Amino acid sequence: MTAPIAIRRLNATDADFNRHLDHLLSWESVSDDGVNQRVLEIIADVRSRGDAALVDLTRRFDALDVASMADLILPRERLELALQRITPAQREALEIAAERVRSYHEKQRQDSWSYTEADGTVLGQKVTPLDRAGLYVPGGKASYPSSVLMNAIPAKVAGVLEVVMVVPTPRGEINEIVLAAAAIAGVDRVFTIGGAQAVAALAYGTESVPPVDKIVGPGNIYVATAKRHVFGKVGIDMIAGPSEILVVCDGQTDPDWIAMDLFSQAEHDEDAQSILVSPDAEFLDRVAASIERLLPTLEREAIARTSLAGRGALIQVSDMQQAMDVANRIAPEHLELSVADPQQWLPYVRHAGAIFMGRYTAEALGDYCAGPNHVLPTSGTARFSSPLGVYDFQKRSSIIHCSAEGASVLGRTASVLARGESLTAHARSAEYRIKG
Amino acid sequence: MTAPIAIRRLNATDADFNRHLDHLLSWESVSDDGVNQRVLEIIADVRSRGDAALVDLTRRFDALDVASMADLILPRERLELALQRITPAQREALEIAAERVRSYHEKQRQDSWSYTEADGTVLGQKVTPLDRAGLYVPGGKASYPSSVLMNAIPAKVAGVLEVVMVVPTPRGEINEIVLAAAAIAGVDRVFTIGGAQAVAALAYGTESVPPVDKIVGPGNIYVATAKRHVFGKVGIDMIAGPSEILVVCDGQTDPDWIAMDLFSQAEHDEDAQSILVSPDAEFLDRVAASIERLLPTLEREAIARTSLAGRGALIQVSDMQQAMDVANRIAPEHLELSVADPQQWLPYVRHAGAIFMGRYTAEALGDYCAGPNHVLPTSGTARFSSPLGVYDFQKRSSIIHCSAEGASVLGRTASVLARGESLTAHARSAEYRIKG
Repeated sequence: MTAPIAIRRLNATDADFNRHLDHLLSWESVSDDGVNQRVLEIIADVRSRGDAALVDLTRRFDALDVASMADLILPRERLELALQRITPAQREALEIAAERVRSYHEKQRQDSWSYTEADGTVLGQKVTPLDRAGLYVPGGKASYPSSVLMNAIPAKVAGVLEVVMVVPTPRGEINEIVLAAAAIAGVDRVFTIGGAQAVAALAYGTESVPPVDKIVGPGNIYVATAKRHVFGKVGIDMIAGPSEILVVCDGQTDPDWIAMDLFSQAEHDEDAQSILVSPDAEFLDRVAASIERLLPTLEREAIARTSLAGRGALIQVSDMQQAMDVANRIAPEHLELSVADPQQWLPYVRHAGAIFMGRYTAEALGDYCAGPNHVLPTSGTARFSSPLGVYDFQKRSSIIHCSAEGASVLGRTASVLARGESLTAHARSAEYRIKG
Repeated sequence: MTAPIAIRRLNATDADFNRHLDHLLSWESVSDDGVNQRVLEIIADVRSRGDAALVDLTRRFDALDVASMADLILPRERLELALQRITPAQREALEIAAERVRSYHEKQRQDSWSYTEADGTVLGQKVTPLDRAGLYVPGGKASYPSSVLMNAIPAKVAGVLEVVMVVPTPRGEINEIVLAAAAIAGVDRVFTIGGAQAVAALAYGTESVPPVDKIVGPGNIYVATAKRHVFGKVGIDMIAGPSEILVVCDGQTDPDWIAMDLFSQAEHDEDAQSILVSPDAEFLDRVAASIERLLPTLEREAIARTSLAGRGALIQVSDMQQAMDVANRIAPEHLELSVADPQQWLPYVRHAGAIFMGRYTAEALGDYCAGPNHVLPTSGTARFSSPLGVYDFQKRSSIIHCSAEGASVLGRTASVLARGESLTAHARSAEYRIKG
């Protein structure tokens, strides 16, 4: 009898590697019919009864004895109070993180532009912030102050006029650091509601909750399902899968560091995924040994162990080029290039949410305070999507201002194409502007 | 007995105007259970049987007698042949439009950036095009060459490595102008498949159809439903509602021009929405008269009449400021500012897909050849989303490269915040990088 291995080993040169990798990565989040049905009922209830539904549902789901909607509104002073209640070290850390996140995101702000053609026709793009954004913050154990900063600050940098936060307080439990983060991030209004009912309230509005234009932030399956259902009425961010890290190491980083970096994903939840890729087989052995040795020292050992055993892997590759191929195939949420010259390999990275370069850049630094966002595309969606950013809170309008001359010239082309599509009112509308 | 009015009249100063407006705008696209069920079956079939399923489903739904997948692949030479078959005027119009669309969209391309902090830490954002994009083009009556240009060109400008187009050819009907547009836009591969099966093939890949990273382009309810279901596996563009135009006019534009601009939306389909807003009541009368007079001259009179009667409106406002308020409330797909000084009012426009400035800028010019995209947010989604653009085919990766010094300083902040969230492996991973 051998002890259960903490993490599986794969070799990218094996004939059936791709099949093994596909299996390892496979993840499909499906809301079952029961969840869908309950969520649809909750949304309908909030749409028809507004505040009264929110009060009832909060009593039922959050075991909160509230008399009216007034009990579900947190005034700004309560956020300020939270700032007093956390430790000075916590407050300082939040402020440093907020400042760095703000300063990075300011570089993402996009400006309107336009240009004038020879005949006086002006074309351009006008960039406008959303009027109002909604931020969902989970209550209970998955309530993370850092998420408040990462979701609210890009909205404020974008110039969103009002940021509305919802956070459930089951059995009255309030996370003071979350409220302090909201104060620091400049959140405008806070309601202590959660679940599908909070999403419905943000999407459709009630007597007290103003309807928003976009809802962002993580949540459980009810929240995610509700976001899917209100999509279209409002914008939503990506529906996130479990968190993942892919570490590519040349074999020269301290194996304990790499093990801890893998743990920092694995401790999130049982479905989180931590993968190490290296061309150095002996180094993979050393990391495996570090994992075995350090796992028992973790506060969240059980979660990390389940995650590593179920979804983790140490992958041996023939060389760094193959490591890059594996990385692009996975399109990881977090990619750590723990190598001597990460800059050399950066051009080969096509798909990753965030890239952590060099041995010193632990993913945890990016999670909290490096500056870039920690809301990142998961489950391979980095192939087509981006970190949450200021651009998610701005939208564009095309500008077309034809001169009389420009309209006359363009009218001829539009007329031919419109008639080719049998859209003759289009053609005639253009033709009216053609000079005789 | 009076003749049926072609279009309703509203007054923004009426007490119940907002209720009337909400009713007028109300639109909810819901895929019923039957459609969902059939689409899910088709997706499952394509995932399990690949090409064989595509052949079967195409025989069934497109009444096409194909023997194998080879019959559903259009070689590049076929596209070139289409270029010969259309008229020289059509080819020239397509080329002019393509060139203008390309040149506008090149201004949307985004570049990577980075900056270095005092301690040597580098932060940045790397921009990468998608590897492969899929373009759905409807067959039959709604098959628009201009849509091929508007969807494919931004992808090519973004640097997408391969653009794959699908277009059904029911009963063998091929639209030569669509194929010519594909040739001009530089589409790389074309499959003559459609419906939910084409969406499934693009999302999951088959033996012949390569899986793509994002699917764009319009389609019927089966296509839209399939796109919703594959969202997450691949990216999708917005699910479009009926097309709409809002014309704001100061009363000084030729009423026939305005009537034809309204028709150019109304002729699209019975659910399209055309609304005119003006502070000049007498002008609204004149446009109503133009509508009555010109409607019978339209090739698509029946469609336009149904659209105007069901969803159209002439809205009187007290002044231009109120016109702007109504416009922002509607957040229209197309906004025509048919006024003397449109530049004066542009700063007040917060939400619109595209803004057509001045009396000469017919919306039809923007539909075909002005340069900006004609794929625009509908049904009020301009509150939070943007025209299709190059940015839809690029994605961003955050770059974090900490110096040893930077990691040490940031590690202290990350450690405090991680411990505040009880994520101690995160904390320890950061603490390893703190200098002793």
